[in-house]
Amino acid sequence: MNDNFTEEITPLLIEWRRTLHQNPELGFMEYYTTYRIGKELEKLGFIIHVGVDALESASRMGVPDEPLLTEQENKALHWGVEESWMEKMRGGNTGVVAIWDAEKNGEHIGFRFDIDALPIKETDAKDHFPSNHGFRSQEDGVMHACGHDGHTAIGLGLAHFIAQYNDSLTGRYTLIFQPAEEGGRGAKAITDKGWLDEVDQFYTGHIGINPYPVGTIAATTRGFLASTKLNAHFKGVASHAGMKPEEGKNALLAAATAATQLYAIPRHSGGPTRINVGKMSAGSGRNIIPEASYLEIETRGETKEINRYVLEEAKRTLHAAAMMHDVEVMIDFVGETEEIECDDSLITTITEACQSSNYVTEVLPFAKVSGSEDASFMTNTVQNNGGKATYMLFGTELPYGHHHPAFDYQETVISVAVDAYIHILKGGMSHE
Amino acid sequence: MNDNFTEEITPLLIEWRRTLHQNPELGFMEYYTTYRIGKELEKLGFIIHVGVDALESASRMGVPDEPLLTEQENKALHWGVEESWMEKMRGGNTGVVAIWDAEKNGEHIGFRFDIDALPIKETDAKDHFPSNHGFRSQEDGVMHACGHDGHTAIGLGLAHFIAQYNDSLTGRYTLIFQPAEEGGRGAKAITDKGWLDEVDQFYTGHIGINPYPVGTIAATTRGFLASTKLNAHFKGVASHAGMKPEEGKNALLAAATAATQLYAIPRHSGGPTRINVGKMSAGSGRNIIPEASYLEIETRGETKEINRYVLEEAKRTLHAAAMMHDVEVMIDFVGETEEIECDDSLITTITEACQSSNYVTEVLPFAKVSGSEDASFMTNTVQNNGGKATYMLFGTELPYGHHHPAFDYQETVISVAVDAYIHILKGGMSHE
Amino acid sequence: MNDNFTEEITPLLIEWRRTLHQNPELGFMEYYTTYRIGKELEKLGFIIHVGVDALESASRMGVPDEPLLTEQENKALHWGVEESWMEKMRGGNTGVVAIWDAEKNGEHIGFRFDIDALPIKETDAKDHFPSNHGFRSQEDGVMHACGHDGHTAIGLGLAHFIAQYNDSLTGRYTLIFQPAEEGGRGAKAITDKGWLDEVDQFYTGHIGINPYPVGTIAATTRGFLASTKLNAHFKGVASHAGMKPEEGKNALLAAATAATQLYAIPRHSGGPTRINVGKMSAGSGRNIIPEASYLEIETRGETKEINRYVLEEAKRTLHAAAMMHDVEVMIDFVGETEEIECDDSLITTITEACQSSNYVTEVLPFAKVSGSEDASFMTNTVQNNGGKATYMLFGTELPYGHHHPAFDYQETVISVAVDAYIHILKGGMSHE
Amino acid sequence: MNDNFTEEITPLLIEWRRTLHQNPELGFMEYYTTYRIGKELEKLGFIIHVGVDALESASRMGVPDEPLLTEQENKALHWGVEESWMEKMRGGNTGVVAIWDAEKNGEHIGFRFDIDALPIKETDAKDHFPSNHGFRSQEDGVMHACGHDGHTAIGLGLAHFIAQYNDSLTGRYTLIFQPAEEGGRGAKAITDKGWLDEVDQFYTGHIGINPYPVGTIAATTRGFLASTKLNAHFKGVASHAGMKPEEGKNALLAAATAATQLYAIPRHSGGPTRINVGKMSAGSGRNIIPEASYLEIETRGETKEINRYVLEEAKRTLHAAAMMHDVEVMIDFVGETEEIECDDSLITTITEACQSSNYVTEVLPFAKVSGSEDASFMTNTVQNNGGKATYMLFGTELPYGHHHPAFDYQETVISVAVDAYIHILKGGMSHE
Repeated sequence: MNDNFTEEITPLLIEWRRTLHQNPELGFMEYYTTYRIGKELEKLGFIIHVGVDALESASRMGVPDEPLLTEQENKALHWGVEESWMEKMRGGNTGVVAIWDAEKNGEHIGFRFDIDALPIKETDAKDHFPSNHGFRSQEDGVMHACGHDGHTAIGLGLAHFIAQYNDSLTGRYTLIFQPAEEGGRGAKAITDKGWLDEVDQFYTGHIGINPYPVGTIAATTRGFLASTKLNAHFKGVASHAGMKPEEGKNALLAAATAATQLYAIPRHSGGPTRINVGKMSAGSGRNIIPEASYLEIETRGETKEINRYVLEEAKRTLHAAAMMHDVEVMIDFVGETEEIECDDSLITTITEACQSSNYVTEVLPFAKVSGSEDASFMTNTVQNNGGKATYMLFGTELPYGHHHPAFDYQETVISVAVDAYIHILKGGMSHE
Repeated sequence: MNDNFTEEITPLLIEWRRTLHQNPELGFMEYYTTYRIGKELEKLGFIIHVGVDALESASRMGVPDEPLLTEQENKALHWGVEESWMEKMRGGNTGVVAIWDAEKNGEHIGFRFDIDALPIKETDAKDHFPSNHGFRSQEDGVMHACGHDGHTAIGLGLAHFIAQYNDSLTGRYTLIFQPAEEGGRGAKAITDKGWLDEVDQFYTGHIGINPYPVGTIAATTRGFLASTKLNAHFKGVASHAGMKPEEGKNALLAAATAATQLYAIPRHSGGPTRINVGKMSAGSGRNIIPEASYLEIETRGETKEINRYVLEEAKRTLHAAAMMHDVEVMIDFVGETEEIECDDSLITTITEACQSSNYVTEVLPFAKVSGSEDASFMTNTVQNNGGKATYMLFGTELPYGHHHPAFDYQETVISVAVDAYIHILKGGMSHE
Repeated sequence: MNDNFTEEITPLLIEWRRTLHQNPELGFMEYYTTYRIGKELEKLGFIIHVGVDALESASRMGVPDEPLLTEQENKALHWGVEESWMEKMRGGNTGVVAIWDAEKNGEHIGFRFDIDALPIKETDAKDHFPSNHGFRSQEDGVMHACGHDGHTAIGLGLAHFIAQYNDSLTGRYTLIFQPAEEGGRGAKAITDKGWLDEVDQFYTGHIGINPYPVGTIAATTRGFLASTKLNAHFKGVASHAGMKPEEGKNALLAAATAATQLYAIPRHSGGPTRINVGKMSAGSGRNIIPEASYLEIETRGETKEINRYVLEEAKRTLHAAAMMHDVEVMIDFVGETEEIECDDSLITTITEACQSSNYVTEVLPFAKVSGSEDASFMTNTVQNNGGKATYMLFGTELPYGHHHPAFDYQETVISVAVDAYIHILKGGMSHE
Repeated sequence: MNDNFTEEITPLLIEWRRTLHQNPELGFMEYYTTYRIGKELEKLGFIIHVGVDALESASRMGVPDEPLLTEQENKALHWGVEESWMEKMRGGNTGVVAIWDAEKNGEHIGFRFDIDALPIKETDAKDHFPSNHGFRSQEDGVMHACGHDGHTAIGLGLAHFIAQYNDSLTGRYTLIFQPAEEGGRGAKAITDKGWLDEVDQFYTGHIGINPYPVGTIAATTRGFLASTKLNAHFKGVASHAGMKPEEGKNALLAAATAATQLYAIPRHSGGPTRINVGKMSAGSGRNIIPEASYLEIETRGETKEINRYVLEEAKRTLHAAAMMHDVEVMIDFVGETEEIECDDSLITTITEACQSSNYVTEVLPFAKVSGSEDASFMTNTVQNNGGKATYMLFGTELPYGHHHPAFDYQETVISVAVDAYIHILKGGMSHE
């Protein structure tokens, strides 16, 4: 095998990353992003499944409203997305699943790359690398502030390797370019389509998270919590607060009652739990009994079962708060993640495979993380079907942290990740 | 007519008052009190209806528990109540309704006297009149601290007048000796039996309340609020707070949530409302999630409708608080009163009738009061059937206020009230 | 006197009303409105006091933020307001007080007209009178939706009468064109300047409110509640809800706790109270412990003292809610009104004076209203200094109600009001 | 050494246990218990420190009220406690610390035995061992329901061993007979006196807790949480809820608000926390705004620091709830424990030492427990000063669980514990 692959493809990795960074798209609206990824994979000879063929449409969570979708669809068409592609994506069905069969017996290996951006206005500070290198976001208020532009580039780099080195490969490869990771909205829809059911090894991961130096990677992670994201809409009856206080049904009070009570959900002896009401809005005018209110909520638990406990308590609390103030409540589930328990056996696999990498300088057995990841649906499905799965980290300095308007990372981490993945592939094959 | 009647009966009035004071009985347990009243009325020639014949048993509210009833029944039997009388009263069916027909055409006039005592330990202070005159309560923790001993004496005095002056009377007289006025528990049961349905004029009242001098009476009152008294029992599941916090169903929190929310029931534009949680108890030990809790609640409103509004809000709040903490709630209705709107036309009737009284020195057209009175069920029934009704006050100094362990009043107010009532009777007749 | 004055000035009244309607300005930003009123009054010979000369700048409440003020000032200058006038108004000091001395002994009579518009987008429905008569608001999102355009026209009409009939007048006239009535923000600043201190009779009022037919007026009103409008800003500390829940200071919870507790402020036995939290917003993202929150609150009471009680309870509640969640709270007082108790003696004055009016067809002795009015500061000051004051209503049909995007009224009510006021003036003089 | 010591002393151990069981005394009122322990130790030749000489009086928590103390003191005097002893104990200063110096160089070893009983009425069921063996509690409502009678017997047995085998011992021995372990009230006062400051090895433990068979012991325990026990008394102002709602200061609402808010104290990322309000009472009568209320609270945290976090949040919450309802709050700290982290190195020490015991059949390296123990103050002080400490368990069947009216244990566990301790002593010495 040509050990210079990573070095040679690096300029392309950077070019992909930068053009993606310039054209960020929000979750379930990655029309142009999907199109560009898909065209590249098609060119390489992958069998691709796009949009409604890639995901189970009904399993998506937190799909944007119709007008927003339409606006972005029109924009994407204007940018050159072909109508035949748009047909498969229209209505927020984005993402690509690419299949490669090496036509020699071997394991089925899956990879996942998330492709969506965030509703953040990118800084125009002079010392911001994308700004002073000419690839700052061109979409106002949308930004690749979590590194998914890099993840996508990694996936494309890996695809090139597979296509180029087919002859020396065995088994089957499934490359998932997943929409709407932010908010835990997209992975379940991909998973429900069955792509992970027969995968023997599954790899995914994130650049950054912990600020390791470039070259350091973590073979596994510990600490992703199961979580559910939900919104509650309370609907009451407005009334003049001075003249007819008894005729109002106070939606603000229902939301306020719910908020204070949600934090009082009892602790669980089985492990940590979390609850947060991150946002609230209610009411229209000072002297009107508020007719409507809105809460953004997140539950977490160490395991899916513990999160389920918090969630069930939260649902009852919301309904009781509505009953308390005689209003109605509608609950939207807009995101969900499970816990991730990486297979420790992959620590050795990865560590040994990467020993010959020129890019990976150190493999940590595990990294402590927190927060939530919807790749958990994939890792758990793989493991439930007898496969092995891990969630890796790829080190880079992080001057500003994820989701910050000035978020940035060292671009060489992209090459490190590609090189790690192809060494894992090669390592896996050398086991044959 | 003999104008010296009141003067002549005064010693008897005082004797009655004092023996009643010495033997106080709580609401729905006035077995001995009922027996003594009934025997006296029977002797005078009244047709009497006792216990289950006097009230609608199922309409009683806040009936004491069985063991308490039994204990008091045995005590009453021991004190000499005849078994034939006890048969009609057993199980908390106390009170007497006495009918007198003057056998000459005339109006049907009703009077009501309440006869129950309070769960208060009477002071043994040397300067307390009942103490230093030898008629302090002989029942530990039970006391006539609201003057119903006087009310009963007034009723007996009036009965004597009616029996004695039958020849100069016309019409029909219904004298109600009502149990369980405290807590608004007894009047509805009497009323539901139908005694008030054909009454043309209805008089009741209270000694004291406002501290007018003896001799001053008020022909009507304004301000009694409709009210409902209820108890809420929450039942959850205990659990060790340290080891299994998630297994508890917290009845203390349900009660606390209910309490804070009850006070937030919206104001009503139609008139004043009130809500109070007067008592709360919950839990067993510091490290146990509380399994049970208890609230004593009172709602009030300017009218029956407004009180109903508060009550409905309160009920929903209690159920929602239970739902919030996944516990059960049982609500007991233990008392109820309606608003009282006295007939202004009786102001003239009373004022004129009392002009010739040697006891009544001044008739106020109305007195402002607050609080609640279950005589309201009677006044409203009379008025709904076309009759007239009033609630009067009979002045006395009040050094300590009603329901105080040292409550006392000037005994001459009893004679004033008797004389007012018989002048009203005579006045009514002179109108014929 | 020429009894045709009102008829003759009616076209002018309508013209004024319509141009004012087309150019609405929000409270404390009535720069152009003030200028136009002031120029007209100056022309008539009134001594005028503009802006900082008309009001006590520090007594204003709820003054808009600097950038908003500047924007509107520039607009007004562009529209032709002279710089010498702007100097007196800059920074939100709007309004005019106009003085006329008839130079013959007589009473000092005050009138008040409010001049501000509302932040409401006027309907463009075809059947909306201002739309189909070409004088719909030209300011997007600003509308005279409460009739203050009419009030201003009434004031100008009355000014014309005074100037024209000076010879037949006695005493002194103070005409107040008050800014920022909406939200109860402007009257106190005018009052604090002392204009009302020596007024013998004070008249103000409103067109509409109750839907009486045109021609019907009410001499007095009953029911305006004292009120205070306040905003609370809570400031806590953000933290990642999953990773560091213990490091957050939750401003959302502080606001929610405050809201639920504010409604539980105890009822007052002295008279009705009201409390409302009309608006709440808090938080930034689902998984962030909310750093900031905001409440819009209104307290009311039957009297200034009762409102003060509610307000003090509300302030303590807000501070306690902040303490509860370890955050800071800043309270802005953005509006205040007192109760209005009209002088009943003016009922006769007004009724008799208007008997000879061709426009006033019926004078109701009083109208029941609710809500709040900052003219209360003026009526109370006049009365505290020995004068008499009233708040009148001038009937008109009201198809949509005040503050509605399609609010409108019958323009002839303007003439009715002018005619009522000038008859009151004439009536007052004929008493001499 | 005589290996038959334990066998020979067993009848005495059982006699002590049973007489103690018959005469149980509550925490800080163990006057007679202290006297009996002290007399026995004095007889054996120990230097003893009693009452105020044994503990730091001001460091005691949750001391019973004066009248209760006096009553028990009189009872103890009546039972034969000498006045000279009572002088040192009066006012709730109970417990004994006994010192033995072997007068040969060696380690300083400390032991602690807790001696108090519980406010529980012992069952008189026929199948209850103490009942059918004639040593049921003679104090109504007081019971050794947690095995401290056995603990005391173990301590006396160990003291006998030390006295008897002095010649073969080295170093110094401190035997602590601690009062008021229940509620975590006594250990801190003993510790603050300095007894643990120079101890090299510290042993304490509990019979039961986990239901191991007799003969099985655990060398260490894991899981005791740091905790604080506190009571909150709210004091407001009563008022008639119907007549003067605005004059009340509602202590019930303050307590209810505190309760609901306490459970909402944020989770801590550092480890588990707990909060519980185990008991609440408030108010006097249905129509009275409650003047007083009371809460029993417990905070817990994995470590002293995390518990401190919960406690500080709880304190602020209580004060804010008081401020919210304009009442006063007084907080009593009635108990405190720290976490216990046993020295793992003692696992080997104990396991090896007990290999030659005829009583100990199995040594578990550690037992998982929960709940709280105030011996933590002692273990932490020893460890902070460079010593080693452990908290052991001594197995016994537990048909009813601790604190149950029918609690009982297998008496042979006492001999097992004595034999374990003396083997540890001998093992320690054989190390020299």
